[in-house]
Amino acid sequence: MIETPSLVDQYCHGVLRTELGLGTFEAHLGRGEGPPAPGTTFFDTQTGFAVRRWCPPLLGLEPHCPPARYLARRRELGVLEAGRRLLRGSGITTYLMDTGLPDDLTGPTEMASAAEAEAHEIVRLELLAEQVADTSGTVESFLANLAESVHAAAVGAVAFTSVAGVRHGLALAPQPPGPGEVRGAAGRWLAGRAVGGPVTDPVLLRHLLWIAVASGRPLQLHAGLGEPGLRIDRTDPVLLADFARATAGLGTDLVLLHGYPYHRHAAHLAGIFPHVYADLGPALARTGARAGAVLAEILELAPFGKLLFSSGARGLPELHVVGARLFREALGRVLGGWVADGAWSLHDAQRVAGMIASGTARRVYGLGATDTDG
Amino acid sequence: MIETPSLVDQYCHGVLRTELGLGTFEAHLGRGEGPPAPGTTFFDTQTGFAVRRWCPPLLGLEPHCPPARYLARRRELGVLEAGRRLLRGSGITTYLMDTGLPDDLTGPTEMASAAEAEAHEIVRLELLAEQVADTSGTVESFLANLAESVHAAAVGAVAFTSVAGVRHGLALAPQPPGPGEVRGAAGRWLAGRAVGGPVTDPVLLRHLLWIAVASGRPLQLHAGLGEPGLRIDRTDPVLLADFARATAGLGTDLVLLHGYPYHRHAAHLAGIFPHVYADLGPALARTGARAGAVLAEILELAPFGKLLFSSGARGLPELHVVGARLFREALGRVLGGWVADGAWSLHDAQRVAGMIASGTARRVYGLGATDTDG
Amino acid sequence: MIETPSLVDQYCHGVLRTELGLGTFEAHLGRGEGPPAPGTTFFDTQTGFAVRRWCPPLLGLEPHCPPARYLARRRELGVLEAGRRLLRGSGITTYLMDTGLPDDLTGPTEMASAAEAEAHEIVRLELLAEQVADTSGTVESFLANLAESVHAAAVGAVAFTSVAGVRHGLALAPQPPGPGEVRGAAGRWLAGRAVGGPVTDPVLLRHLLWIAVASGRPLQLHAGLGEPGLRIDRTDPVLLADFARATAGLGTDLVLLHGYPYHRHAAHLAGIFPHVYADLGPALARTGARAGAVLAEILELAPFGKLLFSSGARGLPELHVVGARLFREALGRVLGGWVADGAWSLHDAQRVAGMIASGTARRVYGLGATDTDG
Repeated sequence: MIETPSLVDQYCHGVLRTELGLGTFEAHLGRGEGPPAPGTTFFDTQTGFAVRRWCPPLLGLEPHCPPARYLARRRELGVLEAGRRLLRGSGITTYLMDTGLPDDLTGPTEMASAAEAEAHEIVRLELLAEQVADTSGTVESFLANLAESVHAAAVGAVAFTSVAGVRHGLALAPQPPGPGEVRGAAGRWLAGRAVGGPVTDPVLLRHLLWIAVASGRPLQLHAGLGEPGLRIDRTDPVLLADFARATAGLGTDLVLLHGYPYHRHAAHLAGIFPHVYADLGPALARTGARAGAVLAEILELAPFGKLLFSSGARGLPELHVVGARLFREALGRVLGGWVADGAWSLHDAQRVAGMIASGTARRVYGLGATDTDG
Repeated sequence: MIETPSLVDQYCHGVLRTELGLGTFEAHLGRGEGPPAPGTTFFDTQTGFAVRRWCPPLLGLEPHCPPARYLARRRELGVLEAGRRLLRGSGITTYLMDTGLPDDLTGPTEMASAAEAEAHEIVRLELLAEQVADTSGTVESFLANLAESVHAAAVGAVAFTSVAGVRHGLALAPQPPGPGEVRGAAGRWLAGRAVGGPVTDPVLLRHLLWIAVASGRPLQLHAGLGEPGLRIDRTDPVLLADFARATAGLGTDLVLLHGYPYHRHAAHLAGIFPHVYADLGPALARTGARAGAVLAEILELAPFGKLLFSSGARGLPELHVVGARLFREALGRVLGGWVADGAWSLHDAQRVAGMIASGTARRVYGLGATDTDG
Repeated sequence: MIETPSLVDQYCHGVLRTELGLGTFEAHLGRGEGPPAPGTTFFDTQTGFAVRRWCPPLLGLEPHCPPARYLARRRELGVLEAGRRLLRGSGITTYLMDTGLPDDLTGPTEMASAAEAEAHEIVRLELLAEQVADTSGTVESFLANLAESVHAAAVGAVAFTSVAGVRHGLALAPQPPGPGEVRGAAGRWLAGRAVGGPVTDPVLLRHLLWIAVASGRPLQLHAGLGEPGLRIDRTDPVLLADFARATAGLGTDLVLLHGYPYHRHAAHLAGIFPHVYADLGPALARTGARAGAVLAEILELAPFGKLLFSSGARGLPELHVVGARLFREALGRVLGGWVADGAWSLHDAQRVAGMIASGTARRVYGLGATDTDG
């Protein structure tokens, strides 16, 4: 009843280019700090069950077929052909891709071709800083090159993203650090750093956020369950309230990625601050059969024009499929239920579905409209 | 099936007396720190959709009609007549009203007349302190006048309310401040203060709480989402655990207002401490189509005799309507579902519905019973 | 449709041996810091309603009969016969029992006989330390006797349990305390202590955790709502993230008890760390008609092989019944719903139900398999 013909996936990564065995495939379903416990498998998770539900039919198999059979079919088709079938069957027509992971994943051009879709780049601030540090001799040249790199990236990329929350926690001082503070922190970092060494200093992380804010491009902030590491309460989006207050009115939008299990807090901030948006991604993709229930929680407090679909997928095209299918089914079920109860009109429900699926992302990221938008 | 013929709204405000244009009306649907984001409207929220569902029929229009049409009809009837129809259609028979807002809203007498209902006053402690400060010359006279004012207010009011959580956060020291501490804080505040200046000092906020506790009147504490400002984790009701422990057995009831998104924590405290109660207000009114789901979460841990309906409405009579209708429908749906499953008996469900709708409020606030109570 | 013929209750206590009047029975339904509020009763809670739903039929009465009638019938049968009928009607075939409460409750042998079931002991670390302290003359003998007692207990018990979270909060330093630190803390504690005095010192609590970890037996950690006292945010299982990281790979499993209202956090940790498991107990038993909804939240992020059923019951055999019945019904409803929607296959649902009901507990605690396992 509620239709979302075209999806903009506002945050995802590329896919692996190599053939995968059962163990490697399974490892990409988990997001933990170790292998599955003895006697258990990451296939026995909501994500694993969702992959087994939605993906086998796209490769000509029955839903819920055993993992080994699915992997055999995937190898039979080859990684390229399987990837094409999966991505083209996902319903996603535009991919916004964070290219800042160390893994060897496909980039926007390959993705666009495999998926027959649009694809744009999201630049990860910390990786940019690390790349600039690798090639800058002095603190002065590092800071100048960094500013120039962010400026240059802002031309080609649709957004910046920051993992400051995962690196340090989101309880960062909300104001921009002073120039002396930044020079001092940069000096210490560059002096102690081997090539490729990660930026974790809170002053430098804040400096990155503020030069990104100055660019005017939307800034995506990892919060909640995005990545393992630290303690999740340190990535509670509520910790961004003061940063949101400090950046209000500057003309740059903030997008809170992930959020779960603090998604109600993310929705609250999206309701309080005009320039704050909330992502639906892994909150749905990782909760599988519960995606509708989690989506409904996000829809409690967030204004309907402040929510953005994403898959959050990484490495496996199956995860793009699962993110998209779970979202569509959850949205149809939740909004459809409210229409059936008389709580919402059908017209409003379709309008809201179109916003979340693609319309708001097109507005926030300045993407062109397409014929298939709802 | 489950009926709640008479509602006591245990926390709300009055309504505006002026005709409203579309923009002003919309502004009262949002509770943020700015206007709606460009390209969005506060009508596209659960509260906005709930207003469009429940209110047009009370003014002779179709549910879900466009906002402009609704506002035109509202102006055609005039603010007084529209207010009367809305309030009288809400199902609320007693209003307990916090009169401590700066806005020019109707008071209990006007409200009672417009709504053909009972109305009683709730006194906001911080406003009382500010009014006393405006007219007291010395620290000694301020403290004496304050004690006398609280005492006098306790005669006419049904309860006190405190926004200490919004002003400072709820992580206040749980014990009463000593007399010297209070005098010192009062001296500093009075010395630095212009007429009307707000009280935010934690010692004075605690002093207000404790003189209210001494009055024996129920004390309502803002927690969770009540008001924008600060960070919501600083108004998590769990922070009141030690204050609740410190006030146990003194004979004064504490009512935790709002709670959401920490409503499960509020319910927990209501289960742990005999003198602690939890409010349902904005948790339902602001989550609209999700009111039943949120109500069900509150009903997990709270003893059923410790929950109180409120609308939390402010400024627009539409918000009183929405609070009451969402509550009734949610209660009927949730309890009715449990009866249908055999989990609860119908008799128990009706008994519990009557408690939450009005019975417990009548007991806690010492209101007379009415014929229409369930 | 989804069947769980045999339940392993992985955390509970024994039952009272004395006849109970209405007031004493009611007191065991509440878990607060005081009696019910005037005008209310602990029967008017989800637990109270669940007892009235599931227990009267086991004693030959109608579901939902009035409490006084139920208590009269219970006394008519006698505490022994009523206990037998209730426990044997619960569906639990193995009880793992924390024997470390001061109350005079039945132990594993009596329980096995009354219930016609298996029963094993869980040893509470803090009680063990207090018993050792009562009989040790010096710091050196205390520490040596403690190590020996834990070692001896590990032979007969199926697990250790710790209430460090309730005694001090879970924000404990994650590393083992040094020997000098432990001796100092033990000396101070023994010097100031009367016979039976409780251990609350964080260094000693950590020492207990680490000698238990060294034993290799599963270690159950109280988190969330287990016991009143402190503030529940201080028992948020997320605070255990660093302890989990510190104990990873040592070969000892951690089981997070209770969790609610932070059960999503417990599920997250179970997903991140191979050796961390999450309990379903009181999260279901105390939320009654909401057990299915709460179970579904836990099933969002936890790998399905990392969840363990328990009743958490204490004192009343009615609570064992309620824990077991609510779990079975909730599991059948939630998993059955997902099968009906096509999200899960029936085969997978039955397999997962068997794991949570008994299979995973048998693996983690090294219990033998039984014919009736699913």
